Amino acid sequence: MKRIAESTVRRLSLYLSFLEQRERDRVNTISSDELAHLGGTTSAQVRKDLSLFGSFGKRGLGYSIPELSGKLREILGLEKQWRVCIVGAGKIGAALARYRGFAERGFVIAAVYDSDPAKLGKKWESQAIRDVANLAKDALSERFDIAVVATPPESAAEVVKVIVEAGIKAILNFAPTQLTVPSDVTVRAVNMAIELEGLSFALTNRAR
Amino acid sequence: MKRIAESTVRRLSLYLSFLEQRERDRVNTISSDELAHLGGTTSAQVRKDLSLFGSFGKRGLGYSIPELSGKLREILGLEKQWRVCIVGAGKIGAALARYRGFAERGFVIAAVYDSDPAKLGKKWESQAIRDVANLAKDALSERFDIAVVATPPESAAEVVKVIVEAGIKAILNFAPTQLTVPSDVTVRAVNMAIELEGLSFALTNRAR
Repeated sequence: MKRIAESTVRRLSLYLSFLEQRERDRVNTISSDELAHLGGTTSAQVRKDLSLFGSFGKRGLGYSIPELSGKLREILGLEKQWRVCIVGAGKIGAALARYRGFAERGFVIAAVYDSDPAKLGKKWESQAIRDVANLAKDALSERFDIAVVATPPESAAEVVKVIVEAGIKAILNFAPTQLTVPSDVTVRAVNMAIELEGLSFALTNRAR
Repeated sequence: MKRIAESTVRRLSLYLSFLEQRERDRVNTISSDELAHLGGTTSAQVRKDLSLFGSFGKRGLGYSIPELSGKLREILGLEKQWRVCIVGAGKIGAALARYRGFAERGFVIAAVYDSDPAKLGKKWESQAIRDVANLAKDALSERFDIAVVATPPESAAEVVKVIVEAGIKAILNFAPTQLTVPSDVTVRAVNMAIELEGLSFALTNRAR
């Protein structure tokens, strides 16, 4: 498969979330116009995005929602189970460990790590918090697919080094810092500061 | 000022975070090459982004870090104080209320709301959790600039209606749903599902 831009993958996720909403409302077909409207893009863009993965929809009839949503779940890798370890047992880590959307999407929290002796061994949902010193060893036997970095920014680089050495190829970063990883490791960041600054920029420019 | 694309504003935030890191390391100048490298873009893009806001830097000498970071803070509206209300006193709301980065950037948590009678009146940091039924009234007297939506997805639309009617023009959305707002209201979303699906897509396509 050729390289797909991150912005395209983001739109596929959005399309899928709309399709799933329509599935819950028991609607069976959707037009590219409607998908475009919901996703804040054009119907030409929708058709282009979907054509990367095959031929969908019938002219004048729109897309079959069950068919398209199934295909998108397959493309996005959501029909597998992914083993996730969370590094950093603070507030963000706690919110993640309880986040319903994780399990629904096949992301299984397999372990939670911290370095604070006061936290080690405490139970979080079904997980006892483990010592981050054991992460590399555990990753070998438990084959984590994804690591979530939920540490303070000053610890993130060190933790990422361990994650990469453990052979984990996907990282979700919540630490407000830029991570450096080899090219075969994919990082996605959830950076609240950037979103907040976007809002303050918008408010500032309104006021002028 | 002409309309600036969201992607540009995101890069300005990233540039600023790198400049501030360099300031902490007591470095005084930075080249557009280095900023580009840190931001994952090209030096031509850096120069183009910054030229939107005036003339910075000297050929061969790079940018003065104190000057450029001050200007970026001004552009991004970070030299003001913004009054933020959080709607939804769950785990995510709690993490936000304690997030150090908020206050450092001038985002003052002015109020926390929920609709659960069991939570009302409980103290969170310095805030007593208030009844969301009072949000519209409070917004008039306390002039909130930004509302954070940290409710379950099924409550988000109703909460956003109240926020918009209260005259709040900026929303940070943590609910995993698309919000509909008038064109003069800016929404930024922190959508973990999209980031996770990006990772599962990358892992799936590696494996092929």
